[in-house]
Amino acid sequence: MSSTGWTTREAHDRVDSPRRAELLTAARSVFERLGYGAATIADITAEAGVSRATFYVYFASKAEVFAVLAEQVRDAFLEAQRVSAAEDDDILAVLRRTTGTTLEVVVEYRSLIVVLDHQSLADEDIARVWNPIRRSARERTARYLQRAVDDGRIDPVADPQMLAFMGAGMNDELAPLIAAGELTPDGAVERIMGIWEAVLRQRRR
Amino acid sequence: MSSTGWTTREAHDRVDSPRRAELLTAARSVFERLGYGAATIADITAEAGVSRATFYVYFASKAEVFAVLAEQVRDAFLEAQRVSAAEDDDILAVLRRTTGTTLEVVVEYRSLIVVLDHQSLADEDIARVWNPIRRSARERTARYLQRAVDDGRIDPVADPQMLAFMGAGMNDELAPLIAAGELTPDGAVERIMGIWEAVLRQRRR
Repeated sequence: MSSTGWTTREAHDRVDSPRRAELLTAARSVFERLGYGAATIADITAEAGVSRATFYVYFASKAEVFAVLAEQVRDAFLEAQRVSAAEDDDILAVLRRTTGTTLEVVVEYRSLIVVLDHQSLADEDIARVWNPIRRSARERTARYLQRAVDDGRIDPVADPQMLAFMGAGMNDELAPLIAAGELTPDGAVERIMGIWEAVLRQRRR
Repeated sequence: MSSTGWTTREAHDRVDSPRRAELLTAARSVFERLGYGAATIADITAEAGVSRATFYVYFASKAEVFAVLAEQVRDAFLEAQRVSAAEDDDILAVLRRTTGTTLEVVVEYRSLIVVLDHQSLADEDIARVWNPIRRSARERTARYLQRAVDDGRIDPVADPQMLAFMGAGMNDELAPLIAAGELTPDGAVERIMGIWEAVLRQRRR
């Protein structure tokens, strides 16, 4: 197990502490404002209004608190894409619902995602964790679509992996418009679904 | 006219100087490595191997040199999307060619684009310049597609603006795979064109 905090977290018994949650919120705010490189533990403790010693009760390093924030984004994507057995069969309904919930995550974490993308350019440790998180959302979509192809429910115009890239790309392009108030979340979902319906070519049964 | 360098540049007579080009290359490298916030003029002059006084011969501020880099990205996108009168009529050929040239720009400037996205979060001056640059590439695509709809050459599955978002999103998603060597540029173009062909529904004439 790594000691950087990227693959495991120490102090699991303190995970639910309100103080730890405050430190995470403060760290996120500092990283979004300054980027990862320029942010210091002093900035984070000042933002949270706690001492440096308190920070080290919960996190071993700046890298560890950043890793935990990356895990929060991953967990939010996982939750947004969860498909229940009951809804699984109606592919357009699943895509409509998960497009809406995924857009919420992309909009909510938009700034932190840009900071993670930014830091991944220069920092191999962070790229090694963040790139698979980015990728796993697309891979889940691709697997779900592949299953629908295998079951004969859709006859898509391109392979599921390419369609997953297309879907992720549309989400990423429309999210800034939602964040800027130029498009409503529902409006974005409607437009994205128009493309999905056309490219999936659902089969009547 | 603004004095920040965002809308106009002073010292046009020095624009073609090799020293200025060296400073821009150095600045780009520093911004990509450190981000905009942490980078200093001292970092840039150290990277270029010139004095602080030399920097100020060519640029008024860190903001100005960053603005000129943003303009370089804008010009590269403009050049990548230029359509000649001769090729204009063959929509799939135009999209194939401009997808290839635009992907080259996205891959080449990938790090700087992430830095520009990152800085636009916190810095309204930069957002005011960078967001329209991002947007103009999509708008050109949308206008081109709209013209093809008006001429009856295509019968697309969605409105041209949404298709332009889709296209930009696919480029942005596939560019990191090209940069990482996981996909060839030609392979990316082929996959993207498969989607374009399907959604445009070209009309035989």
